[in-house]
Formats: sequence, C-alpha cells, structure tokens
Amino acid sequence: MRRADDGKDGLEGDTSQPAVQDEEVERLRRALDDEQQRHLRLRADFENIRRRASRELEAARRDGQRAALLPLLPVLDSLERALAAGSTDPDFYEGVAATHRLFVNALHEGGADPVDSVGRPFDPKVHEAVGVVPSKSVEPGIVMREIQRGWRLGDELLRPAQVVVAAPQEASDSWR
Amino acid sequence: MRRADDGKDGLEGDTSQPAVQDEEVERLRRALDDEQQRHLRLRADFENIRRRASRELEAARRDGQRAALLPLLPVLDSLERALAAGSTDPDFYEGVAATHRLFVNALHEGGADPVDSVGRPFDPKVHEAVGVVPSKSVEPGIVMREIQRGWRLGDELLRPAQVVVAAPQEASDSWR
Repeated sequence: MRRADDGKDGLEGDTSQPAVQDEEVERLRRALDDEQQRHLRLRADFENIRRRASRELEAARRDGQRAALLPLLPVLDSLERALAAGSTDPDFYEGVAATHRLFVNALHEGGADPVDSVGRPFDPKVHEAVGVVPSKSVEPGIVMREIQRGWRLGDELLRPAQVVVAAPQEASDSWR
Repeated sequence: MRRADDGKDGLEGDTSQPAVQDEEVERLRRALDDEQQRHLRLRADFENIRRRASRELEAARRDGQRAALLPLLPVLDSLERALAAGSTDPDFYEGVAATHRLFVNALHEGGADPVDSVGRPFDPKVHEAVGVVPSKSVEPGIVMREIQRGWRLGDELLRPAQVVVAAPQEASDSWR
C-alpha cells in the first residue's frame, strides 16, 4: 500500500515527461500486481477461516454436550447400583425404576448412547480391559462382563466401557 | 480485476506514445485504487467473520449444554417425586437419596443451577406464574410456592420455575 501511494504522490504532475511516464506505468503495474496478489492471499485466508469456523461450531456444540453429559454418567451408575441391591418396598422401587428408564431416555435425547459390550469382540476404541479371564464357554477375545457401561456421543466416545475379556487361546497357552 | 488486466494487455507496447501513456497511467491508478478499496472491504469482512466466529463458538457450546441438560431436568423431578413419597425401606431410600445429591451436583458441574424462587419477588425473566393466591402472611408479589423448579445455564435461563405468587394488594382490592 505504502509503495503504491508513494509512487502516486511523488509523480503527480510529471505526466508530460515520457521517461518518467514509463517508470510510472511500470511502478503502477507492479503495485497493481502486488495488490492483486495480496487480495488473492486474503481471499484464500478468508475461505479457510470460514470453512474452519463451521467445523469448529460443530465441535464446540459437541464439547458443550460432553461437558454436560459426562458428570451425569456416574449418577446413572449410582441409581443402577441402588436398583441392583433391590428393595423390600415394591412401590418405592417401581418409582425409582421408572425414573431410571426416564434417565436412559433423557441421555439418549441429549445425545448419549450406551456402548455395546457383553458378547462383542473386545474393541480398544470403546472398551477398556480391566480383566482377562480364561473361559470354556466364551470365545477368546469376546467381552464376558461389563464392569462400567461405556457411552458414545454421536460417533465419538464419551466414556469407555470397563470390561472383562475372555482370555485369548495363545495367552492361556503361554501361561502353562 | 478484468478491467485492470484488459488495460494491461491492450496497451502493452504502446508506452512510447504520451497520450496513450496518460490514459494508461490514469487507468492503472484507477485500477490500483479499486483494488485497494476491494482489499479494505475484504479485510473488514474478514475481521467481522473472525469476531463473530468467537462469539458463535461460545453460543454453540452453550447450545450443546442446553440440548444435553434440558431432557435430564424431568428425570430429577421424577426422582424428587419418588423421594417425596417416602419409603418403608430405609436402606434403599438412603441409596436413592444419595443418588439424588449426586444428581444435583452433576447438573451443577455440567453448568446448570437452580433458580431461587420461594420467598423471592416474582421475576418474569425466570418465573412463570401458574397461580396467584391471596395471603395474610406473605407480602404481595412474593413467590409462595414452587410447583416446578427453574434452572439456569450460566446467565441464561434453561427452564423457568413454575410458581404460585402472593396476590398483589391492588388485585385483591379490585376483586371485591
């Protein structure tokens, strides 16, 4: 910008001298060229930032969901432990069981869904092995038991499942 | 861009004729001016989109929290109704009461906090009046009872409180 302006100001009024004219034309052409290049670069930056902004919006929304949902998963765990212990008061128990069903539906509505674990092949992307146990009835590498349920948020992992896996044959062999 | 290029191509080789030169200098100056204006406008758009992007990220995160938290509020309501009904099984009841405390803490951690209602002046920004009742003990315009708890998300409202308000003196007078 500065160079282009200097050229203009400095040569104003000299337009009758052909040599100075030649210089001025060259100078202006270079300045115009520079300016056009500068515009193209800024336009490219502009398009980049616009594309990135739309990706980042989606990620920010996901972050907000994650921040809100993650602390609630241990609450559901706690409710499930209470229900698993059972109660001598069937009416109260049924009220709490109904609340539990609402809870799972609300998590789904808020974007969270359980990870399938028991009976599935161990998948390190969503499962965290907290035990490996030899089994006669379960195929090696298959999840036998779920210690803590895993949760997904869309196609991301919200919390891994903690699972016990049937020992692979090779491992059992090598332990002998 | 097109005009500047046309000027260049059309006048290449004519730089020895002063009149054409004058025209060329004028043309280039105008083209450079246009180009600089164009650059300034794009730069302004660029800054705008960058500023807006940062505001929009915050709003998108908030949206994600809202979408995740809103469906969970009726679950807490349901748990509180169950607890309010009481139980003949004190152990089970205590397990559920502990889960309820975890729930309120988890909502706080996820960004949601209860709206203060009972004993406060009715505030249409956070309260929804579902009843207006004359009272001898409560000042007019004060919230007497909460039917459904309200929740905030930061400085936004997540869900209004449904409340019963003490009738204003004027209203009581006009009913006579």
